Amino acid sequence: MAAKNAYANAGVDISAANRTVALIRKAVQGTHGPEVLAGVGAFGGLFDAALLRDARAPVLVSSVDGVGTKTKIAAELGRYDTIGRDLVNHCVNDILCQGARPLFFMDYVASANLQPEMVAAVVRGLAEACRQAGCALLGGETAEMPGIYLPDEFDLAGAIVGWVERDEAVDGSDVRPGDALIGLASSGPHTNGYSLIRQVFAGVPLDRLYPELDRPLGDVLLEPHRCYLHDVQRLRDVVRVKGMAHITGGGLVENPPRALPAGLRAAFDWGSWPIPPIFSLIQRLGNIDDQEMRRVFNLGLGMVLVVAPEDAGRALETLGIGAWMVGRVEREA
Amino acid sequence: MAAKNAYANAGVDISAANRTVALIRKAVQGTHGPEVLAGVGAFGGLFDAALLRDARAPVLVSSVDGVGTKTKIAAELGRYDTIGRDLVNHCVNDILCQGARPLFFMDYVASANLQPEMVAAVVRGLAEACRQAGCALLGGETAEMPGIYLPDEFDLAGAIVGWVERDEAVDGSDVRPGDALIGLASSGPHTNGYSLIRQVFAGVPLDRLYPELDRPLGDVLLEPHRCYLHDVQRLRDVVRVKGMAHITGGGLVENPPRALPAGLRAAFDWGSWPIPPIFSLIQRLGNIDDQEMRRVFNLGLGMVLVVAPEDAGRALETLGIGAWMVGRVEREA
Repeated sequence: MAAKNAYANAGVDISAANRTVALIRKAVQGTHGPEVLAGVGAFGGLFDAALLRDARAPVLVSSVDGVGTKTKIAAELGRYDTIGRDLVNHCVNDILCQGARPLFFMDYVASANLQPEMVAAVVRGLAEACRQAGCALLGGETAEMPGIYLPDEFDLAGAIVGWVERDEAVDGSDVRPGDALIGLASSGPHTNGYSLIRQVFAGVPLDRLYPELDRPLGDVLLEPHRCYLHDVQRLRDVVRVKGMAHITGGGLVENPPRALPAGLRAAFDWGSWPIPPIFSLIQRLGNIDDQEMRRVFNLGLGMVLVVAPEDAGRALETLGIGAWMVGRVEREA
Repeated sequence: MAAKNAYANAGVDISAANRTVALIRKAVQGTHGPEVLAGVGAFGGLFDAALLRDARAPVLVSSVDGVGTKTKIAAELGRYDTIGRDLVNHCVNDILCQGARPLFFMDYVASANLQPEMVAAVVRGLAEACRQAGCALLGGETAEMPGIYLPDEFDLAGAIVGWVERDEAVDGSDVRPGDALIGLASSGPHTNGYSLIRQVFAGVPLDRLYPELDRPLGDVLLEPHRCYLHDVQRLRDVVRVKGMAHITGGGLVENPPRALPAGLRAAFDWGSWPIPPIFSLIQRLGNIDDQEMRRVFNLGLGMVLVVAPEDAGRALETLGIGAWMVGRVEREA
């Protein structure tokens, strides 16, 4: 008797899932150093923690995040290889705020219908960014969720685990009024504000060339989230960084306070750094006021660092182009 | 000039997100022991890894997973507190297969529109399961994804990090032909096969009372994924467990091989354990053949353990009710 029903008919194709695993295996394994003891296929990924055993006072630092509706731009352009870099770089920057270096990453890709080639492209991007950050892509899950996701849409989330010596962790506790704020250039909206962006550009083809932009709109919007790991590590060899704020959801309004002790605020000198044209375009087309722009977008600063005022010059010199003195720490009024 | 546009109009309400954080803070903090150095609000969660520094050869074990379309049952019933337990228990079981104990968990909840009370209920469930497993709920992300998710639907994924001493890790390498398979009772479909289940029960109200079931259909389908941590730990104090397979997507066909060395197979004695009535009902109503049922569902066995044949009796005695000898390891034909 032939079964009238099979799982494939219910919108979940386990064979497609298996094919995806085969496609991504190589990219994933390229991120594996000798610390990775078991990876693809095992129930859990195994990561040799000998370096934590040999540490003075190791602290694990973790973060979980998604890329928001930037996935819709990727889906519309059919370009899936950069969105994985967005996610990894976002997470690397998050734990970097506390001074941590990445150890490993785990991803979750879900859609109504799993397309192996799409997932493989996403994972290639994840793997490439992991490799650049010295991070193992230790595990991943692909999920088919018919009836949850809209057709052709997908979501991508992931979690990172890194570590830091306890006495080298950055927690902002010794930030003082008068400390300098150093801003590091973003590569665009990174992964925040895309629901608003899509509303502003509703109906506009992604190959549109605006005079303000040097590339087609879609290229500018899909530009990957920048990773600040190597810049910040280089800086910390030279200058003491007291606090770091990754400018994500909540923009320049809500993120800097997370790097400061209670009672202190970040006073930006608005206009002290160049706001990339994409933000001015969004503001103009959407008729959005300044405060809302600051609360949603990074406005060209993907990371804000706090250093002592006497270290600011040396910090800027070390960081080179794409770094500006953007304000100072003040007491709250 | 009033802004004509604001982020809230684009379907993302940052204030709602902040309200959610306030609601869940207490439940999350209830999972935090002294190892948790920073949690809610920080860019990354900090977990004191002193126990890894003091270990002989620590290995970190991680897994990432979702709960599949079981979220649709939760959404339809408006009961969001158990689905978090599903996710945590799923992940705890995954790393348990390699002998690991959980350290911390990170969650990701996404929907078209963030409902703070719904997210709070989900996180309460996550926190409760974390507490029971001795695991810190170290971080989480809530994402509003209008245009990605269907209205009123949500997705829930998470990642767990645990650890094991290298010489106590379970990898199946010393499994031999003739070893016994011990099956541990599942509490229902756990978190797998829900797309098929929803197809089989399409149009059936979730309060339907079938004669085969002791509770309304919705209650049976929403029953949380069982956690095997404490049972397996108790067993491992008494008996050497050579291999463990968590029966998730791929069912009894695809998961047991993941716990066995190449060239060996799990030979189940079909009929040696009681198949819960929900599976028989699904099979009958859906007219699904046996092989497909075995490839999709756990059929009453949520975890399959491999022990030496001489240890099987003692294992069953230690585990008590809800554990059966369900087959043996054989050479592949």
